[in-house]
Amino acid sequence: MNYPSRLIEEAVVEISRLPGIGKKTALRLALHLLKREEQQARSLADAIVNMRTKTTYCSRCHNIADQELCAICNNAGRDASIICVVVDTRDVLAIEATSQYKGLYHVLGGIISPLEGIGPSDLHIDSLLSRVEKKEGRDDVNEIILALSPTMEGDTTAFYLQKKLKATGVKVSTIARGVPIGGDLEYADEITLGRSIVSRVAYD
Amino acid sequence: MNYPSRLIEEAVVEISRLPGIGKKTALRLALHLLKREEQQARSLADAIVNMRTKTTYCSRCHNIADQELCAICNNAGRDASIICVVVDTRDVLAIEATSQYKGLYHVLGGIISPLEGIGPSDLHIDSLLSRVEKKEGRDDVNEIILALSPTMEGDTTAFYLQKKLKATGVKVSTIARGVPIGGDLEYADEITLGRSIVSRVAYD
Repeated sequence: MNYPSRLIEEAVVEISRLPGIGKKTALRLALHLLKREEQQARSLADAIVNMRTKTTYCSRCHNIADQELCAICNNAGRDASIICVVVDTRDVLAIEATSQYKGLYHVLGGIISPLEGIGPSDLHIDSLLSRVEKKEGRDDVNEIILALSPTMEGDTTAFYLQKKLKATGVKVSTIARGVPIGGDLEYADEITLGRSIVSRVAYD
Repeated sequence: MNYPSRLIEEAVVEISRLPGIGKKTALRLALHLLKREEQQARSLADAIVNMRTKTTYCSRCHNIADQELCAICNNAGRDASIICVVVDTRDVLAIEATSQYKGLYHVLGGIISPLEGIGPSDLHIDSLLSRVEKKEGRDDVNEIILALSPTMEGDTTAFYLQKKLKATGVKVSTIARGVPIGGDLEYADEITLGRSIVSRVAYD
């Protein structure tokens, strides 16, 4: 495409490097910014650079953080005896949005995937194991919840972690898999439905 | 949502001010940038600010430009006797992509819309009329093509321009409306199909 200005073209090229944004959408966004106050473009640019340059990772759970520890690890009201293992920060946000969990997290930073060349050593697994170790002056960790996607990679990673954690003697659990709430049984796939029968829960 | 870091939250807020980008997509884009090289975030930010602060508008056709005149008005190979009137730069790009037009453009910068409070005086209509005026040392304009969307606002604007241009004696035409090429007649709406019969074109 022949862009009317080199500056627009450069902006379109940079914006379209973002995932899920093509050249047409990038042009629409660029022309939108051109029509708005100059301050909006500056604020956007500043927020992007600030985020990228100043954000760090929590030294304990590897979640995104502003300081040494993330807001969750820093919160004395959280139950330090349970750790929920997730792949990335988006999973932390998704679980936080449920308001059903008050423990801490551990962000693996990825998932075991031989196809993509990601092995256990590329993930934050050693630091998870050392968090489980009993140490004086620190609350004992009683339970590890694996909250990984029910995919091939997720199951492989869960299997690996389970084996590693067994040696430490900590209780390991996984989030329940079954028919989604609000979903019609008729439309549940057979693997999920089968699993939900095998993993049935007795009424108290 | 509880963001893990204030910096992420600020970036999400700024990114989600762009049209068609919600909070979830903004978060996905922010986390993507966090994983990439710092340079990518800086290039994106610089391109946005440069585009917004340095882009100007062509003093003749109001298209986006790097200099006093846009690349199209500056191109001596274009036919200066025809002007195609469009709403915005995206329309210019769409027509340029067809490679079927070698004349100049005139960007109105909007469309007459009483509902949104946009009247003729908010558009670049006066400068269009003065471009049509005969002047010494300048090529005469022989034809004005109105390339406006076949909507209520587009038709209103076309009607207004037609009346104004009539006084100057210049030939005024509109882009053809009819069944889209590659489309099935069966699926064409009745108004378009009706118009395509009324505006039928005789074989030479």
